[in-house]
Amino acid sequence: MRSKVLIIGGAGNMGQWFVRSLKRQNYKISIADIDPQAQEVAKALGIGFVEDVISAVRDFDIVLISVPINVTEEVIWKVAPHMRPGSLLMDVTSVKKGPMKAMRDAPKGVETIGAHPMFGPTVSEPLGQTVILVKVEGRCENWLPRIVDLFENSGAHVEFLSAEEHDQMMSVVQGLTHFAYIAIGATIESLKFDLSKSRRFMSPVYEIMVDFVGRILAQNPHLYAMIQACPDVKRVHNAFITQCLELSDSADSGETEKFVRLMRNAASHFGDTESALRRSDKLVNAKIAELEILAKSIGEERALRHIYSDVVHVGIVRKVTPQEVLLEREGKKTELKIENVSLLSADELLCWKVDNLVHHRRDISVALLDCVKPEIIAGIIEGVDGVISVKQIDTYRIKNGHVSLTYRIKIIGDKDPNGVQHEVEEVLEGIGGKIR
Amino acid sequence: MRSKVLIIGGAGNMGQWFVRSLKRQNYKISIADIDPQAQEVAKALGIGFVEDVISAVRDFDIVLISVPINVTEEVIWKVAPHMRPGSLLMDVTSVKKGPMKAMRDAPKGVETIGAHPMFGPTVSEPLGQTVILVKVEGRCENWLPRIVDLFENSGAHVEFLSAEEHDQMMSVVQGLTHFAYIAIGATIESLKFDLSKSRRFMSPVYEIMVDFVGRILAQNPHLYAMIQACPDVKRVHNAFITQCLELSDSADSGETEKFVRLMRNAASHFGDTESALRRSDKLVNAKIAELEILAKSIGEERALRHIYSDVVHVGIVRKVTPQEVLLEREGKKTELKIENVSLLSADELLCWKVDNLVHHRRDISVALLDCVKPEIIAGIIEGVDGVISVKQIDTYRIKNGHVSLTYRIKIIGDKDPNGVQHEVEEVLEGIGGKIR
Repeated sequence: MRSKVLIIGGAGNMGQWFVRSLKRQNYKISIADIDPQAQEVAKALGIGFVEDVISAVRDFDIVLISVPINVTEEVIWKVAPHMRPGSLLMDVTSVKKGPMKAMRDAPKGVETIGAHPMFGPTVSEPLGQTVILVKVEGRCENWLPRIVDLFENSGAHVEFLSAEEHDQMMSVVQGLTHFAYIAIGATIESLKFDLSKSRRFMSPVYEIMVDFVGRILAQNPHLYAMIQACPDVKRVHNAFITQCLELSDSADSGETEKFVRLMRNAASHFGDTESALRRSDKLVNAKIAELEILAKSIGEERALRHIYSDVVHVGIVRKVTPQEVLLEREGKKTELKIENVSLLSADELLCWKVDNLVHHRRDISVALLDCVKPEIIAGIIEGVDGVISVKQIDTYRIKNGHVSLTYRIKIIGDKDPNGVQHEVEEVLEGIGGKIR
Repeated sequence: MRSKVLIIGGAGNMGQWFVRSLKRQNYKISIADIDPQAQEVAKALGIGFVEDVISAVRDFDIVLISVPINVTEEVIWKVAPHMRPGSLLMDVTSVKKGPMKAMRDAPKGVETIGAHPMFGPTVSEPLGQTVILVKVEGRCENWLPRIVDLFENSGAHVEFLSAEEHDQMMSVVQGLTHFAYIAIGATIESLKFDLSKSRRFMSPVYEIMVDFVGRILAQNPHLYAMIQACPDVKRVHNAFITQCLELSDSADSGETEKFVRLMRNAASHFGDTESALRRSDKLVNAKIAELEILAKSIGEERALRHIYSDVVHVGIVRKVTPQEVLLEREGKKTELKIENVSLLSADELLCWKVDNLVHHRRDISVALLDCVKPEIIAGIIEGVDGVISVKQIDTYRIKNGHVSLTYRIKIIGDKDPNGVQHEVEEVLEGIGGKIR
């Protein structure tokens, strides 16, 4: 029997991610959400919609809480008492201590698991990405294996932590990362620093940092404010500000030796800085490599796939700047932002042409000794540059131990069919054939 | 006549970079350096060494100052008065206001330029990287075009700023970037946070940030301390700490709306956060893509080039983790760190094999009609999978209008030569030939 899941907050981004993922795994899904559009979302997704959550929860095998951090505990308190024994209550919030504590009050027999998927809702298949699970001994034995399967089947990697370990870990992994980038963004704003002018003078390290600042600033500020408001993150704020003050005091007062010592301590706690240097080198090079290849391709044909629309643009590369590439095809010029495209390989370009161009057709008849093998001849024709496929469409014996073979040849759309036909005929004559 | 350059600080990393770059452009180079090894370095590089700088500077066309920031002005003061009119004094420090002011006191007729290459000494060819030049109106007309050429010939891109603009720009581009990363590293240390454990729970954004923290911590702390001690950077420290305090106060006191407002202001000053998101997405994907391809290649042959040694490792992929890949070749297993290798394409692997394996040789004789073209037959043989090259080594006429052709065939080392020979013979028989 298919398990019935109720996703509270199911119309939100992360909620919809769970809808898609659970659907693929054959769960029977309903959502509840205070979003006025929720019922339409449910209809569009072809799933159930629940209006009165409190009276409905008894019907479900799993109740999944996917609501903003600041209301997660409240929703748990309201919903849990009405669940039936044997069912599972699970939240998917970025903090775990509060929700796990709230779930402790669920009725006897209701199992509880805390989950934190470490990826955003834009990731369709979380291949190799991590989900952290918090299990409660004696309260999740039946459901845990199925929940682990659920995530692992979607390609994610499951790790276990206690709620305390989780929140402490995340106070740095998420809390400090976001805080530092947001503070950099706020500083750039407070200095009225001209970012677009600075792009002309960027080093790759600065460029990448600025892009991550922009990435964080592009997110929902309410979610980020809630993560920053967690008690464990407060401790991290204090530690960070203390270090900033120490470092700036020592630098500004000219105590170079103190600054050097602080930096060395940090490096020695960090450990293998050389590996970090190499990984970041690799990233910097990946950023530069595509641009270099494009810059060296001026005057040549290249294909660029638009990352977001998947449209492939093919043309002669006319101009390349660090921001843009200009392709020309049949007199039409297309300007593409480097950030939006990825360069296809020569093989990928060929596949694209085979699938997308209108090709030419030629029928070629040749007289050869009747001891030849027609399929070997077809294979040889297929080896001629520009030939996509070859089909033998006619054979008949002629005088003097000869045979007439006719091949239908498909020639790739952007090649001159006469030129390719000529080459095929030369090869056939070269093996002793007579074109008819 | 070749221009004579004296590089003061020429035994240092950046100094040696200039030695290599100027040598390629046919300058006659000497170095001076307080490093006791400097004379040996000069000998090893095949360039001159100057002991008594003060009395020697008159002999040089260019005096290039490549010494630590904190002694740059002092060196300029000492050296400049002894230079001869018509020569050029240029520094290559990360700050420009102080050195430009010091160079103002150079004797009449001595030209002066300030330079700041925005790349490290490990970059051999600064393709597309930026060099900022500070020119002094009326004091660099003769030398400026040559210095611009010097950098542009090495592939760099030249931008002009005033000393004030430069230092203000760099207080953020370098000052803030370094400061934030060093402070994050110091915070991780002060919290005694377990970085290696955290790697199991990383999100790509955190992972990349941590690698850049490690990258900065791996650098020379004295250089970084000096950059942080510049007056313009002090202003940036203050602005950054002010923003950190505002953000943490609003988050810790639960003033979510204030935090949201600060973040929104930063986003609106930042401007196009969507583009930043896309560029960072592309970077995150580049990081993940190679790992995904490797994970999908288990059981197949792949080639990995070691980024630092350039050694190519070829083998069957046996195991892939986010950190390592295990290759097996002829029973020998090699474990490689992902961060140290880059995956070669199928074409690159083939080229490597052609260059590095011991190949097989076979001579094949075939009787064909004497109207065939031997070079067309050779081309057909070359098309057989596993054949690297084909050479016609013998021809003679035989009875009944036939000819005997002998080809010497090179078969790639890791293919079974008998199998490939058999395929070649099948093709030759297929076109009516008789193997002899």
